[in-house]
Amino acid sequence: MKRETNLNPTMKDVAQESGLSLATVSKVINGLPVGKASRQKVEAAIKKLGYQVNNYARALKSNKTYSVALVLPSLKHPFFAYLTDELTKSLMSRGYRAILMITNYDPDAEQKSFAMVRSNKMDGVIALTYSPDLEVGDSISIVTIDRHLDEDIPCVSSDNFRGGELAAKKLIDLGCRKLLFMRITSRIQGEPNKRCAGFESVCQSRNIDYETLLLMDDEPEEPIFQFLENHIHDGEFEYDGIFCNSDILAGQVIRFLSERNISIPDQVQLIGYDGIIDRLTDSYVCSTIEQPIAQMAETAVNILLNPDENNAGANICLPVRYVSGGTTKE
Amino acid sequence: MKRETNLNPTMKDVAQESGLSLATVSKVINGLPVGKASRQKVEAAIKKLGYQVNNYARALKSNKTYSVALVLPSLKHPFFAYLTDELTKSLMSRGYRAILMITNYDPDAEQKSFAMVRSNKMDGVIALTYSPDLEVGDSISIVTIDRHLDEDIPCVSSDNFRGGELAAKKLIDLGCRKLLFMRITSRIQGEPNKRCAGFESVCQSRNIDYETLLLMDDEPEEPIFQFLENHIHDGEFEYDGIFCNSDILAGQVIRFLSERNISIPDQVQLIGYDGIIDRLTDSYVCSTIEQPIAQMAETAVNILLNPDENNAGANICLPVRYVSGGTTKE
Repeated sequence: MKRETNLNPTMKDVAQESGLSLATVSKVINGLPVGKASRQKVEAAIKKLGYQVNNYARALKSNKTYSVALVLPSLKHPFFAYLTDELTKSLMSRGYRAILMITNYDPDAEQKSFAMVRSNKMDGVIALTYSPDLEVGDSISIVTIDRHLDEDIPCVSSDNFRGGELAAKKLIDLGCRKLLFMRITSRIQGEPNKRCAGFESVCQSRNIDYETLLLMDDEPEEPIFQFLENHIHDGEFEYDGIFCNSDILAGQVIRFLSERNISIPDQVQLIGYDGIIDRLTDSYVCSTIEQPIAQMAETAVNILLNPDENNAGANICLPVRYVSGGTTKE
Repeated sequence: MKRETNLNPTMKDVAQESGLSLATVSKVINGLPVGKASRQKVEAAIKKLGYQVNNYARALKSNKTYSVALVLPSLKHPFFAYLTDELTKSLMSRGYRAILMITNYDPDAEQKSFAMVRSNKMDGVIALTYSPDLEVGDSISIVTIDRHLDEDIPCVSSDNFRGGELAAKKLIDLGCRKLLFMRITSRIQGEPNKRCAGFESVCQSRNIDYETLLLMDDEPEEPIFQFLENHIHDGEFEYDGIFCNSDILAGQVIRFLSERNISIPDQVQLIGYDGIIDRLTDSYVCSTIEQPIAQMAETAVNILLNPDENNAGANICLPVRYVSGGTTKE
């Protein structure tokens, strides 16, 4: 509902009210030095008139809009919701507006969002996209999360390779001898692919038997559950340690095995990835490799707003940690 | 990272390139009627030059910024994340930008967000706030979710009273004879208070024994669990039906009772509120009263962008439905 509209006082009105020149008022508003007495008079006039800085006029003049687009596929996945929460708080604390764009994993919507960043003259974009051939175009400041869009665009992620190593080491240290890596993956080349590589490198160097099971996210999920079913014999699962590339997938596997009376963590130990807190129980949903989401958000915002040629194309991998969440023996 | 900067073609450049007048170019850009041949020439020139409409200049002229603030406490609660997802998509589909403001339940941050809406000349705000004495001020278009901020501000919510009635009826129809209503509540007067009232009205009219247990959200949660503990005797819980005012609380109660070997739904049936989908299992976390989140978002955006004096102060309660999620007998 539109409520009663106020008068819109201008800088001229402030000058008249304070009895000072427009130049002095402008200096106060733009934070430039003026005498203390003048500043106080201007501030009193601003307060009395209810003068508001017109950010759009300022944007036209300064060529800066203090707005950053957040391009994400959805907020219905807890990792994206947490990331957006932290990115928004980080931008707000620096006086920037977070302009949220939800793309529903649609390549056209992703491409369109970049066009909007340009036509709205936003100061930049932080994006987590799924299209394999996105045109970023010139004149956009961009930082990605988990994606390599172009060779000179910085990418912030958790240390996915190290996360995969950590998971394998932990399962082996806890006594597992036949490991399984499970992943539902998209067709684009993203940072999370390294989770598998890190996992495999530890299994190979420690000479531990392992298998990897990959499924594309545009395929039906049945094969994964068929695989699990086929490897249960006489109430025993063939693998004694599982690493899933997300807590969501881990949750599905836990449920499937539990329904078949495979005991976790007694018969099978399981580690997920992300570090999602289940709001229903206020605890981790499984043992997991936790992504430092707040730190990832801070870093992405920092790099975007303080560009440094040294960061061109950098891949900033932030440290992960293992947390026990009941699906491993410790 | 700032990438190579493009030349910034103006409307004048488009006019020159197309060989047409500035007036004609302006008409095409602003969607006014011109001859087909002229339109095609202008469009070809726009494409060739990569001309972008300057929305900030347009905002200054039209006094419209095509931006709406979404003021929410957090995205770490799934209800808020889903709501923000739907609100953003609804705004984007109408060509509006969603400017996200996360307040962390902080009254100062909530108040400050309204000041930003004003100083940024946004077209309006959709807010879900927690401060008991928020100053909305004049000249802001506002629609709230679940809150009554002022007598002429429209409020969109689910039909909370009906939801409470539905839950009580369902539990009674499924055989429950001693009911418990549990709620963690804030000190502000919000729409969700009606859930208890609807629940009580059915219990009273059907002459069913019931108790209500309220806890303020700024108090420790122990009393709730102490109450549950005190009402378990010899492996039986004193109540055979529970209605919780959120799925989050329901999840905590389910966990607490399960750990004490109280079987759900055999011994105790339980209904939550919200309709949260657990992303880990892709199913409802409990039997629940589902809020129509997408419809609430559409309605809030519609009312905000198409103000109608008849809606001043209206409380728009959208229909809820009961869904079975395994914690009731059907």
